[in-house]
Amino acid sequence: MKKKFKILVSNDDGISSKGLLALRNAMLELGDVFVYAPNEQQSAVGHAITVQTPLRVIPHFVNGELFGYAINGTPADCIKLAITSLLDTKPDLIVSGINHGANAAINVIYSGTVSAATEGTILEIPSIAFSLTSFDPEDFSYAAKVAKQIAETVLTNGLPPGVLLNVNIPAIPENQIKGIAITRQGRSKWNDYYERRVDPNKKEYYWLTGTMKRLDDEINSDLVAIQNNYVSITPIHYDLTDYNFLAELKNWNLNGK
Amino acid sequence: MKKKFKILVSNDDGISSKGLLALRNAMLELGDVFVYAPNEQQSAVGHAITVQTPLRVIPHFVNGELFGYAINGTPADCIKLAITSLLDTKPDLIVSGINHGANAAINVIYSGTVSAATEGTILEIPSIAFSLTSFDPEDFSYAAKVAKQIAETVLTNGLPPGVLLNVNIPAIPENQIKGIAITRQGRSKWNDYYERRVDPNKKEYYWLTGTMKRLDDEINSDLVAIQNNYVSITPIHYDLTDYNFLAELKNWNLNGK
Repeated sequence: MKKKFKILVSNDDGISSKGLLALRNAMLELGDVFVYAPNEQQSAVGHAITVQTPLRVIPHFVNGELFGYAINGTPADCIKLAITSLLDTKPDLIVSGINHGANAAINVIYSGTVSAATEGTILEIPSIAFSLTSFDPEDFSYAAKVAKQIAETVLTNGLPPGVLLNVNIPAIPENQIKGIAITRQGRSKWNDYYERRVDPNKKEYYWLTGTMKRLDDEINSDLVAIQNNYVSITPIHYDLTDYNFLAELKNWNLNGK
Repeated sequence: MKKKFKILVSNDDGISSKGLLALRNAMLELGDVFVYAPNEQQSAVGHAITVQTPLRVIPHFVNGELFGYAINGTPADCIKLAITSLLDTKPDLIVSGINHGANAAINVIYSGTVSAATEGTILEIPSIAFSLTSFDPEDFSYAAKVAKQIAETVLTNGLPPGVLLNVNIPAIPENQIKGIAITRQGRSKWNDYYERRVDPNKKEYYWLTGTMKRLDDEINSDLVAIQNNYVSITPIHYDLTDYNFLAELKNWNLNGK
């Protein structure tokens, strides 16, 4: 008899987001699904975890049925708390998303969606982050189909220790999708800009805005792939060591002084 | 005439921390110093940035003199806001710390101290994170001396684009220090544990605690180096791509179905 898989679903847009619902429904076709997600929007929290305040776990009902649990923390908190304290057994897979907006190039390091999957990988569970390239998406049907395909393949093949998949899906009609590309994290930068405003009490405040600039053109970059109508899959890890420069740094002779 | 360097100092322990004061004083020996730091403790925030709420910038005085500026945000916010909107010209160097507690092995990805330096690197300024391996340090004199030596060397040699230095200093007397080791990010995991408690209103809450377990023994690991009384310097970057697995992933034939 085929094993029934156990799948944990989280995100960073919060438990009420449309993308989470689409991902949860897609995973229901593969096994039992458990939802633990932030109680509110947690975009750009990076790999933050909550250590100085307590966490609460609140059952979340949809149409009178238990949908999952909302946690007053970050995406990484949701995964850590669910795995260590709330679930009886480890899930076979963790999926995060479907994020409203791409998580490609430099945005990967700011992404709460990716950090949920990273935390899953740290806790030794195969994990995947899914993002759709629209901040106000209407149609998750193709993204959900891709998520199911990739999740199924990971359930079959597994992932190496310390490696997760970061998947970005163009928000375009399915018949315009050119295929799935295996990519690296692209290079980009934000042209950051803070709007300086004055509040009703005449005090200044600053609010972040900006546009992202692409810094490479190679088709093997995640950002270039999605802009060319490919689904991108980037394998990422959390060993941040720059091994190239490590060798050179030894020549600095810092002990010789 | 020797150029007068301009150095930006930040941290994640907040503008009133002893480690920040020690680092700022050490940097004063190398040039003009500008302090922009979180108004309160921001440990474990990872690379979070604030996008949904406004930021305030409050002058911080010590003994009636302007010490720097406190910002109601994360370490990455402080660097982004200072560089894009508050400083007239780009600094020659950004230093973050001196953190109260090590930022080695898996902790690097949760570290606000490191994220300030990462943000500096993204903004194309040579950046260094400094941490002392004690959560309640008394004596910063050796750490400050090392910080000055490494900062001076970076001001002379520069750093490659996209690479920052993560420095950890053992909290032991200087005569027990064995030297400076060039290291990679070590492997470790947290044995996470959430204490489950009940509040005065009889509602449950969870509070994170745990101990870190070392997963390697090699002396070129940052964690092993500091436990063996070496100062560790790990060059890190923010391209998270796992290039080894990227090649294998192409064989999954995801387009062939």
